[in-house]
This record gives sequence, C-alpha cells and structure tokens, in this order.
Amino acid sequence: KIDGARLWDSLMEMAKIGPGVAGGNNRQTLTDEDAEGRALFQSWCEAAGCTMGLDQMGNMFARREGADPDALPVYVGSHLDTQPTGGKYDGVLGVLGGLEIIRSLNDLNIKTKHPIVVTNFTNEEGTRYAPAMLSSGVFAGIHTQDWAYDRTDAEGKTFGDELKRIGWRGEEEVGARRMHAFFELHIEQGPILEAEDKEIGVVTHGQGLSWTQVTITGKDSHTGSTPMPMRKNAGLGMARILELVDEIAWSHAPHAVGAAGHIDVYPNSRNVIPGKVVFTVDFRSPDLSVIEDMEQRLAKGAQIICDEMGLGIELEKVGGFDPVAFDEGCVSAIRNAAERLGYSHMNLISGAGHDACWINRVAPTAMVMCPCVDGLSHNEAEEISPQWAEAGANVLFHAVVETAEI
Amino acid sequence: KIDGARLWDSLMEMAKIGPGVAGGNNRQTLTDEDAEGRALFQSWCEAAGCTMGLDQMGNMFARREGADPDALPVYVGSHLDTQPTGGKYDGVLGVLGGLEIIRSLNDLNIKTKHPIVVTNFTNEEGTRYAPAMLSSGVFAGIHTQDWAYDRTDAEGKTFGDELKRIGWRGEEEVGARRMHAFFELHIEQGPILEAEDKEIGVVTHGQGLSWTQVTITGKDSHTGSTPMPMRKNAGLGMARILELVDEIAWSHAPHAVGAAGHIDVYPNSRNVIPGKVVFTVDFRSPDLSVIEDMEQRLAKGAQIICDEMGLGIELEKVGGFDPVAFDEGCVSAIRNAAERLGYSHMNLISGAGHDACWINRVAPTAMVMCPCVDGLSHNEAEEISPQWAEAGANVLFHAVVETAEI
Ligand SMILES: NC(=O)NCCC(=O)O
Ligand SMILES: NC(=O)NCCC(=O)O
Repeated sequence: KIDGARLWDSLMEMAKIGPGVAGGNNRQTLTDEDAEGRALFQSWCEAAGCTMGLDQMGNMFARREGADPDALPVYVGSHLDTQPTGGKYDGVLGVLGGLEIIRSLNDLNIKTKHPIVVTNFTNEEGTRYAPAMLSSGVFAGIHTQDWAYDRTDAEGKTFGDELKRIGWRGEEEVGARRMHAFFELHIEQGPILEAEDKEIGVVTHGQGLSWTQVTITGKDSHTGSTPMPMRKNAGLGMARILELVDEIAWSHAPHAVGAAGHIDVYPNSRNVIPGKVVFTVDFRSPDLSVIEDMEQRLAKGAQIICDEMGLGIELEKVGGFDPVAFDEGCVSAIRNAAERLGYSHMNLISGAGHDACWINRVAPTAMVMCPCVDGLSHNEAEEISPQWAEAGANVLFHAVVETAEI
Repeated sequence: KIDGARLWDSLMEMAKIGPGVAGGNNRQTLTDEDAEGRALFQSWCEAAGCTMGLDQMGNMFARREGADPDALPVYVGSHLDTQPTGGKYDGVLGVLGGLEIIRSLNDLNIKTKHPIVVTNFTNEEGTRYAPAMLSSGVFAGIHTQDWAYDRTDAEGKTFGDELKRIGWRGEEEVGARRMHAFFELHIEQGPILEAEDKEIGVVTHGQGLSWTQVTITGKDSHTGSTPMPMRKNAGLGMARILELVDEIAWSHAPHAVGAAGHIDVYPNSRNVIPGKVVFTVDFRSPDLSVIEDMEQRLAKGAQIICDEMGLGIELEKVGGFDPVAFDEGCVSAIRNAAERLGYSHMNLISGAGHDACWINRVAPTAMVMCPCVDGLSHNEAEEISPQWAEAGANVLFHAVVETAEI
C-alpha cells in the first residue's frame, strides 16, 4: 500500500502554489505559478530517483527505470494546471498519486519489469487556452503542434510564446513516446460515487464534448435614446440562445448536459446596448448521436433567433471529442485492484474530459476515480477526504504495478 | 454667427486624443487620454483669453470676463470624456461649441454684461465609474464628494485616487459657484430630428433613468460532470431576467426603454457553470410612475425567477434621476434663437441623461440638440455633418449671448 499521509502532505504543499481567493487554487496553465508548481514536482521526482523528460508542448515525464531495457513504460499521471477558481485536487491528485507510486516502490525496494513514467500534461483545463486537454491531444496526434502554439488567451498571448516565457518548452518531439499502458487517477467531479457510497469508480467510458463558440453581432447604441424597435441587442440574443441551450440539454436528460460558462459582452458599458457578445456553449453526452443532435438544434435554433432580431451570428467549434470507451484490459486491472484491496466500487462514465480520453487513442488506457464532496469541482471549495485520496492511489498503485509486472 | 470651420477643426483635433479602434474615441474619464484632452482644452481656452478654474471633482471652468463685475456668469458646456467605444461628438460638441462662442465674441469684439464660463464636467459617461453625470451631480448637491471619491472602477481603482493621479484635482469647493443660467449643446443620440428633417431640437424635457445592478449567485461547478438537476446556473438566471427586462420595457413602449449593457460572468471559464453574474439594468421613461413600475416589476419578477432556480439575488440602485423639465425662460431663449436664425426646429425630450439634467436643479437650464446620422451614438461610427454642428453652435451662441446681455 502507498503512504496516504505522504500523499496528502504533497497535495497540501502543491496547493500553496497559486493560492485562490477562497481556499482553492488559481494556477492556470503557463503562468508563473504553473512554472513554480512544475519546478516543485520536478524536484520531488528527482529526489525519488527519476529522470525528467520534457517535450515541446511542455509535457513532463518523470521516469523510474525498469528491469527490462526493452520493455515499454507504463505511464501514469494527469495535470497540475487549475481553473482560475479551481480546487486543490482536480488533476493534481493524479500527478502526485503517480509520484506516490514511485515513492512507495522505492520504499518497498521493488523493481518493475517495465519502467514507470509519471506525467504532467500541459493545459488540461482549457480555460486560458481552448480546447481543454490540448497537450495530450497533440501527443495523441489530434491537433498539430503548430496549431496548438497559435492558440491565444484573452489578452492575445499565444500558447507557444507563453510556454517559452515560463521556461518549460522542451526539445523532445511530442508523441514520439510509445506507452505500454496509461492510467489516470482523478476525482469524480460529480455526485455519483458519494450518493452510492462507493470508494472507487472504475471508469469504463468518458462522455463526449462539444464546445461551440457563438459570436452574435448587433449594433452598439445608446440605451436611453435608441427607440425599442430600432435596437439590435446582441445581449438579448445571447439570453435567448442560453435558454435554448438549456431546453436542448434537458430534452436529452439524464443522458446529456449543456450550459455556457464563458460569456463576453462588448463594449460592456451600462449605457451601451451590446453590439457584440461572444460565448461558448458546452454540450456533453456519452452518446455521439445525442451530441450531434444538440449541435444541430443549436445551430438551427440560434439562427432563427438571430434572424428574427436582425442580429448576425457565427458559430465556431472550438473544442470537442467523441465519447470514449476505455481499454478493457486496463479497466479490468483497475477493477481487480479495487476488489483485491477490498474497496467498494462501481462502474462510472466520466462526465468530464481527461487527458486519458486522448491517450486512449494511442495506448491502452483506463481511469480510476475517487469521490469528491457534494460532487463539487471547478470551484475553490472542491474537497475530498485523505481516505478517499489514499484509496484511489492504492488502486492506481496495484493496477500500475500489476501492468508493469514485478 | 460662429465660425463653423473652426469649430469643426477643433472637434477633429480633439478626436486625435484617445483614438478608438474604429474611427471613434476611447477617452474614458480619468485616464491619461482624458488628461491630455483636458490640457488641450485648457490651452485653447487660455489662448482665447480665458482664465481656468478647477474644482475638487476635476470640473473645469474657463471664464471670459463680463462688463458687470456683480453679474453672475452664464455657463455653457458639457463633457470631454467618452465611452470605451464612443463617438467624436458626444459631449465634445457641447464643450467646444462653448469655446467657439468665446472665440466668436473675441472676433466680434463683443463684451457681454455677464461673464461667460465654458465648462467640462468630469465623468459624464458613467462607464468607468457609475453613476453617469457624477461630477455635475456632486456640483448640484445630489451626491456627496466623499461618496463620489469612493466610486471604484472594474479594477478597484477609486475615482478620488485616479483624479489625483492624472493631476486634475483642483482646490475649489464643488458647487460653490452660482450660475445665472446654464446651456448645453449636445447631439441628439436618437433618430427623431433626422426622421423629422429638423436642424434643431429644442429640448423641453429629459427622460428619467434608473440603473439597477443585479447580482445573481449560483454555484460554480463542472459543466460536464454536474447533472442538470443539481445545477445552480447564474448565467441562465441572468438570461431569464434579460428577457423579463425586455418584456417590461416593451409593455410601456414607446414611452419607455430597457436593456442591460453591462454583464460580467464569473469565473467566466468555458467548463465552469457560472457561479455569479453581475449586470446592470437600464430603464428609462419621461414618466416617473413608469420608471417606478418597471423597477418594481423587475424586483418582483427577478426574485421569482431566482427562487425557482435556487439562485440568490441582490439588487442595488447604482444610478438614476427623475424626469426633468427644463427652465421655460432658457428653453424660450433656445427656441427664439433657432427661429431668428431661420433653422427648422422642434421640441424634443432628451432620451439620454446630460449634465444639464443635474445643473437644472441649481440654475435655470436648457439644452439644444442637433441631429446625428441614423440616431447612432455610443458607437465609434457616431457621425454628424459640419452643417449640423454649426447650426447647433449658432443657436447656442445666440441663446447664450442673449442671456448674458450685451
Ligand atoms: N477534468 C476536467 O475538469 N477537465 C477539463 C476538461 C473538461 O471540461 O471536461
Ligand atoms: N449623453 C449621454 O450619453 N450621457 C450618458 C448618460 C446616459 O446614459 O444617458
């Protein structure tokens, strides 16, 4: 078994970097805080005897050698970046859970046949740079590196420039590594495990995602002196489309969700009718045909709303992935580990996207989840218990070591 | 008559300071650009033989002496600050139209009995610091100076600190001046004069305004893994309230308008259900009872919407003024001047708020308006013709000189 107290200490130590305003974290990708978090992780890995690899997307790979020089490594990890008002565990648990495996193997003086590599993927969250899971996506050949480098944040700074600025752009070609398997431990970020009173979620599938960026164009004009019939209010158009998004998602519930988290209004002045609104619609479902239906109904319905109001509309797909079925062998390794260790467990479909969803395209992959309080995540109040973290890391440990062979 | 070409030149010269991104201006209050515009105005006033007064709100008073040392001055002016994406004429025409009167009196070697003072009021627009017409409001005793100093912008910088920073906080007590009369020339910012093919609007009334800042509190959570029934989506609550605002305004049309120009979503991340939205509802009507009805229906309806959705709501009135009836004597002076000069004219109710609305509380006041293309304002494409500007300034000239007596 791993050392739960040591894992928890490391989680709390990492959480000191990029503190939030309400007990959580703001350690967004490619910020100075991200750089500081990476350096701490690297120092811990080196202290545990690993060598650190770094690729041209800033993905980090801490390697513990195996007994067989020809065996492909077993990879384990997640991400250290957070939401602007994020929690202390989302992603971090998966990376430090991986490190805890290395530390425990060292303690137990166990040499696995396959090397084990702990990974930190760059920009999983996708807040500063859409889409989410950008760097695992480049690793898996979904996006080109040039395209990823050109992504811009709200201030117009590119991913490529910022990666260089913080000093974490490596030399290694992205995606050149081959993996024997990949395992990711993550908090559930939803309410199911807690409601069902289970310690472990065996993730069999991940639901698919579609991000559509909507730009509505009206006409800036004076809120006082512009008569009602002359208005082209892009803000009101946005409001009607948000209502439509909610209707569409509910029509497929409980097999779909939908909302807009990002909304920018221009010029955003109290006495100017909005001339432009840009917002992103997030639709998800485990069923690809449902996602396609939602996208089509959004496009059609939003066009009708805007036509009626004399508004312009443009839709751009800025992120997305199809529903995922994880590797049966890896999923079994997770389930067997939970069983062996005596933890209560159940199968889960991941509601969120994860680096594992992309890595699954290039390597046998599975995920283990632990509960989080009230299913709350992407919130500084995100919370888990040390026992939950320990159980998740123990299952990860057993699944990884079994796969890496002793 | 005034010199229309000189007035136009000065308008174009001022427009070079704080250029916008689309041909208009971004010279928001208490920015470096505001300071630069003030300095240019001061240099022009001094070249025209005026002395410059400056009060503790940064209001500027350029004085041309009169023949009678005991006579109260006639004031004329408006504001030099602009919207973030504003036009070249909104406010500026009224200030530089006042300066043009001084220059014309100098040319004609006319000494009036009453001194004439050209005024630039600080922060008329209200974008950076709510409410609008802040400094004419303090002048008229509507707000205290301490309260005004404590207003904060989106970055948390206070009005008082920023006024000091740009170097335009004067020593003079605010509101200590007494005025014989106040006249303001302004573009209409609406479509009526152009539609009716009139050169001059004789402003008899101003409609009232109510700004209600609405804060909706939901719960930040993951857009993917939070089931639909567990969501507290503050963004969706905002959308429903925007629809209500539109319904309420239309129910009183054409005697009312309503919209929200300012909307901030938190944390504004694509994969976080908005936990908080802050936005400002702008309701206007020439009829006070209509404004009160709209405010009450908003408060009641928004509460119902939020209760149904499990959202918290807080309303705060962040600006407003009652409908205004301008001084009959001053209004007649405007109408007579238009008549005498042979300009087509009509009575108007101002759709926008103006410094004149507050000054009307402490001095006999009236306004003259000229058309603007397509009624468009608070937009960089705001446009007027040199002829319209000249006609407005000529009417202002005659009304002011008649009131200041030769
Ligand atoms: N796990 C997680 O929050 N990932 C971010 C990508 C997503 O929005 O699902
Ligand atoms: N004239 C003008 O645009 N004033 C700003 C205050 C208002 O919103 O009416």
